[in-house]
Amino acid sequence: MESAIGVLVTQFKAYAGSDGSSDTLSRDEFHRLVTSEIHNFIKNAADPAATDQLMSSLDKNNDGELNFLEFWQLIGHLASQ
Amino acid sequence: MESAIGVLVTQFKAYAGSDGSSDTLSRDEFHRLVTSEIHNFIKNAADPAATDQLMSSLDKNNDGELNFLEFWQLIGHLASQ
Repeated sequence: MESAIGVLVTQFKAYAGSDGSSDTLSRDEFHRLVTSEIHNFIKNAADPAATDQLMSSLDKNNDGELNFLEFWQLIGHLASQ
Repeated sequence: MESAIGVLVTQFKAYAGSDGSSDTLSRDEFHRLVTSEIHNFIKNAADPAATDQLMSSLDKNNDGELNFLEFWQLIGHLASQ
């Protein structure tokens, strides 16, 4: 279980680190992560409008970036479905 | 990333299914999961009093059981440290 958690943290950081703030996901980074890593879990993963809408619903403080805990909420809700 | 998520869900269910309600963790199940699976992430994991206290802080609806999303919150907070 610890190694699976480690994989998720490492992958989040890899995507979050590609532009701008290295510990949050921008819209582009989120879109890349969704299409590459969790496309089977998300309807219309390839549609940028759909991932933008999803991101807006997760971005509680509305700063255009997802931090790790905001992202973690999404994974938890997907995983519990 | 999907396979790592799958591991966490499967492991949660394996521990949750050992007694009583099969989709929540009782105190005993939570203690077993913590000591076996995430002991490196949690201080005093082997101390039942410490895991009981941790469980109480996570059990928002105070029913003596942890559901998946309550458990997921814990992992997210541990992972983001």
